[in-house]
Amino acid sequence: MYEEREVLVGGQPLRLAIPWTEVLLQPSAGPDGPVENPPVRLYDTSGPGGDPETGLPRLREPWLTARGDCEELEPMGRGAATGADRGGERAGFPPFRGPARVIRRAKAGRRPTQLAYARAGVVTAEMAFAALREGVDPEVVRAEVAAGRAIVPANVNHPEAEPMVIGRRFLTKVNANLGTSSVRSSVAEELEKLAWATRFGADTVMDLSTGPAIGTTREWLIRNSPVPVGTVPIYEALERVGGRPEALSWEVFRDTVVEQAEQGVDYMTIHAGVRLAFVPLTVGRVTGIVSRGGSIMAAWCLAHHEENFLYTNFEELCEILARYDVAFSLGDGLRPGSVADANDEAQLAELRTLGELTEVAWAHDVQVMIEGPGHVPLDKVAENVALQQEWCHGAPFYTLGPLTTDVAPGYDHITSAIGAAVIAMAGTALLCYVTPKEHLGLPDREDVRAGMVAYKIAAHAADVAKGHPGARAWDDALSKARFEFRWEDQFDLALDPERARAFHDQTLPAPAAKTA
Amino acid sequence: MYEEREVLVGGQPLRLAIPWTEVLLQPSAGPDGPVENPPVRLYDTSGPGGDPETGLPRLREPWLTARGDCEELEPMGRGAATGADRGGERAGFPPFRGPARVIRRAKAGRRPTQLAYARAGVVTAEMAFAALREGVDPEVVRAEVAAGRAIVPANVNHPEAEPMVIGRRFLTKVNANLGTSSVRSSVAEELEKLAWATRFGADTVMDLSTGPAIGTTREWLIRNSPVPVGTVPIYEALERVGGRPEALSWEVFRDTVVEQAEQGVDYMTIHAGVRLAFVPLTVGRVTGIVSRGGSIMAAWCLAHHEENFLYTNFEELCEILARYDVAFSLGDGLRPGSVADANDEAQLAELRTLGELTEVAWAHDVQVMIEGPGHVPLDKVAENVALQQEWCHGAPFYTLGPLTTDVAPGYDHITSAIGAAVIAMAGTALLCYVTPKEHLGLPDREDVRAGMVAYKIAAHAADVAKGHPGARAWDDALSKARFEFRWEDQFDLALDPERARAFHDQTLPAPAAKTA
Repeated sequence: MYEEREVLVGGQPLRLAIPWTEVLLQPSAGPDGPVENPPVRLYDTSGPGGDPETGLPRLREPWLTARGDCEELEPMGRGAATGADRGGERAGFPPFRGPARVIRRAKAGRRPTQLAYARAGVVTAEMAFAALREGVDPEVVRAEVAAGRAIVPANVNHPEAEPMVIGRRFLTKVNANLGTSSVRSSVAEELEKLAWATRFGADTVMDLSTGPAIGTTREWLIRNSPVPVGTVPIYEALERVGGRPEALSWEVFRDTVVEQAEQGVDYMTIHAGVRLAFVPLTVGRVTGIVSRGGSIMAAWCLAHHEENFLYTNFEELCEILARYDVAFSLGDGLRPGSVADANDEAQLAELRTLGELTEVAWAHDVQVMIEGPGHVPLDKVAENVALQQEWCHGAPFYTLGPLTTDVAPGYDHITSAIGAAVIAMAGTALLCYVTPKEHLGLPDREDVRAGMVAYKIAAHAADVAKGHPGARAWDDALSKARFEFRWEDQFDLALDPERARAFHDQTLPAPAAKTA
Repeated sequence: MYEEREVLVGGQPLRLAIPWTEVLLQPSAGPDGPVENPPVRLYDTSGPGGDPETGLPRLREPWLTARGDCEELEPMGRGAATGADRGGERAGFPPFRGPARVIRRAKAGRRPTQLAYARAGVVTAEMAFAALREGVDPEVVRAEVAAGRAIVPANVNHPEAEPMVIGRRFLTKVNANLGTSSVRSSVAEELEKLAWATRFGADTVMDLSTGPAIGTTREWLIRNSPVPVGTVPIYEALERVGGRPEALSWEVFRDTVVEQAEQGVDYMTIHAGVRLAFVPLTVGRVTGIVSRGGSIMAAWCLAHHEENFLYTNFEELCEILARYDVAFSLGDGLRPGSVADANDEAQLAELRTLGELTEVAWAHDVQVMIEGPGHVPLDKVAENVALQQEWCHGAPFYTLGPLTTDVAPGYDHITSAIGAAVIAMAGTALLCYVTPKEHLGLPDREDVRAGMVAYKIAAHAADVAKGHPGARAWDDALSKARFEFRWEDQFDLALDPERARAFHDQTLPAPAAKTA
C-alpha cells in the first residue's frame, strides 16, 4: 500500500506516496470481549510493480525537473545495445524498448548531489521520502547526509527508484547481488531475481553481470528497479578490453563509468585503494586476493608496475560522479578471503587509503560509503567497524557478511548472517547478502530468497539490539499473536509468510489444529 | 575411523579407540612439484554404527565393571513396554529385543559419578576418552569436572555412549532434540533422525517424546545412541497421570526418574527453579510461560498453591541421580518466549534459584549444567552468560539458541544460530539446536540436518573466535583448498560435503570446470 503524505520541501508543500506493507490483525480475546489489535506497518521495498516492458513509473522526474540543476540530453543508445555488448543482440537479451527518456547531467557549475543539497541546508524530496519511510524527521536525514554519515543513493538518471537512506542512525539495509555470467542467465531470469530480492526486502541491488549483454541487462534492471542499483564498472571495462587486465586504461574505465552513470547506476564500487605498494602485503596470506575487482587492479598494477589508475585519476572520477550524483562505494579489493587473513596489514592499509579518498570525494560533494569484509572471525568483527568509522570519518560502512567461519560451503548465508548481525549491531549501515551458492555457483531465485531472508533477519536482529525506534514492535506483534494462537496473524507478520504457512501445514494439516 | 590410543588410567594402561573423521587431501602444486597436505582430523560423533535391532556395542562395560562401584540388577521390563506406555504395543513402536543387559545402580555408600571420581583425583576412562577426542590432557578434563565447570554425562546404564565433555574450556557442543508426538512418528523415524543428527555432529540428543510409547522409543534411542541422551522426565510423568498437571505428584515423578535412570538417560531437565512465588512475575509478559515443563510445574503450583515438589524434594532427587550418574540439566521453566521478555525478573529469579540448587547437587556429587534462554535480543545475550556463570558458580551453561528476533517463523534455525554463536563465544558450553520448524511443527529428517548444520556453524564460529586450540586449522585447510581450486578437498572438508557438491554441480556441471 502507499500512504499519501504531505511535507514541506524548501517551503513548498509536496505530496509523497510512502510505501508500506500493512498487516491487518485479528482482535485478541479479552475478558470483556474482543480487543482490537492495531495494524502493523512494515518497511516495503517491492515497489509499485507493473509491466517490465515499459519499466516503472518515474517517481522522481518532477522533483528533478523542479530543481533545474541538470541539462537534459538526447539519449545515446536507448533501445539499442550499449557498452560492452555493442556487438549486437543475443538470445535472451533483447534490448529494452520502453518509453523515451532524457539523460540528465549537471549543468555547468552545478552539483546535483544529495550531499551538496544537504550541506546547503536543503531537504530534498528524496530526503523527505527516505525519512518518512523510516519514520524520522526529514531534517535528521539531511543532517546525517551533510555530515557524510549517511547517503541517499539517487542518480539523476534513475527516476524510477524510491529514495532510501543508508547510515548507522537508520534501519540497517540489505543489498542483493544479481547479475548474469557467461555460463547462463537471461534478462527474464535477472528480472525475476530482482522481483524476488525486493519482495523479500532488498534495499539496494547490485548488478554484477560479467557475461554477454552487460549493458542491455543493466538497462532492463535499472528501468525496473524500485531500489537503487549499484555496479562494479571495472567488470564491464574488462569486457571492453577482451578480459585482459593489463589492457585496461583510465580512458576505457572513464568511458564505462560515464555510460553507466547516464543509464542511472546509483552507486559504483571503485577499487581505488588497491595501491601498488599494498599488493606485496598479500603474499603471505592463506587466500591472497579474492576480490575480483581487487585482483584485476592488482594485476594491472603489477603488469605496468604503476600506481592504480583509479587512485591517480580519483579527482577526475569524483567530478564525473558528481555530475550524475552517483555515490562511491569504495571497494575493499584487499579484503580477507578467509578468517585466517582477517584484519591483516593488507586489509588495513587499504582501509586507511579509503579514508583519504573519502575526504577527496566529499570535497567534490560526492556521497561515499566504504566496503568491508568478507571473512572475519567473530572476535575481530567489531574492530572492523571501529577502525572504519575512525579512519573514514564516519562514512557509512557496507560489508559483505562477514563469514565467521570457512567450513560450511553451501551454507554461507548462515556463516555470514551471524557476522552480519554482529557487525550491523556495531554500526554497519548496509549489509551485502550472501547466498547458499557463495563460492560454489551463481544463485537462482530460491537462493536469492534464502540469502535475503537470512540477511533481513541479521539486519532486523541488529536493529532490535540497537534499540532502533519501532524495530521491536514487529517482534512484539508477532509474539503476541503467537502466544494467543492467532496463527493467521503470525503467518501474515512473518518475514516469509509463505514459508511459515507451508511449514505449519506439513505437520499439523488440520484447520482445527491451526486455530487451536 | 578409530585411532587406537593407550593412556594410563589409575596407573593402569588402557587402550581407547578414539573416533575421528579423517579427511585425506590432494597435494598442492608447488614450484618444484607437488607438496603434500597432511590429512585433517575432525571431531566425529556418528559412532560405530551397526544393526539397530541389536544396539551399539557396549564400549564402557569393561570400565564400569572394573570400577566395581555398582550392583548389577535384573532388568525390569527389558524387551517389554516400559513407563508410560505400559498399555501395550503400538503400531510403529515394537519393543526393543536386543541382547540382554543388566541394570547398574550404586552399591550402598558408593557414588559412581564422574564428579565424585574427579574430586577424588581419579581420571576415569570416560574422562580420558573425552580428553583424547578433544586433544587435551585427561587431567584438564578431571580438573574441570572436579571444579563443576564441566560435566561428562555418562549414566552407568548407557554403556553404548562414547564419552564427551561439556564445559567452556572445551569445544562448544550441540544438542539435537528428537522425539515423537501424538500427531505422528515411529521408532524407525526417530532412529533415522538420530542417525542424521549424529552424522551432522550432534554431541548429545534429547528425547522429548510426548506421544504414545515413550518408554519404548527411549529404549530404542538409548541402545542405539553413540552420544549422551537427555530427557525431560516431567513429560512422561504427565502422561502417567493422564495429561493433567494438577494430578502430578512427587511419587509419580520419582518413579519416572528411576525408570529412566535405569534405562540409561544421561541427563535430565528438571524444572525445580519454577517456584510458586515466581509464577506471578510472568503476568505482565508478552508471552507468559512458554517452556512446556515450566508451564506444567506452574500449573501444579497454582492448582495446589504449594511450593514446586521438585524444589521441596530436591535432595532426594539428588540421591537418585547420584546412584546412576545422571547429570542435572536444571531447566529454565521461566525462560523468555519473546525478545520482549528477555532478562526479566521472572527469568532472573529462577536463575538465582538454579544457582542454589547447583550447590545442593554438588554436595551429592551430582553433575550439573544450567539451561538458558530462549529468545534474547543481541545486546542482552552476553549478560545471560555473565549472570549464569556468577550465580551458578561456573557450572556449564546450556542454551536454546537464543533467537535474536521473533519475526521469522520458518527460519528460526537462523534467527537463533546468530544468538547461539554470540552466546557460545561468551562462554556457553552446550547449544540446543533449533530447527526451521520451531514454533510451527515437528522436525523431519531434513529439518534435523538444517538445524544441526546451522548450530555446528554457530559452535565452530564461537570456537574460532575463542581461539580454541586447533579450531581454526579446519578453516585454514578448507580455505587453502579453495584458493588452490582443489574442489574435491573443499567438498570433503565441508561441514556438509553432499550439499557443497550438489550446489556446485547445479551451475557448473562440467567436470572440467570442477578442477579449473
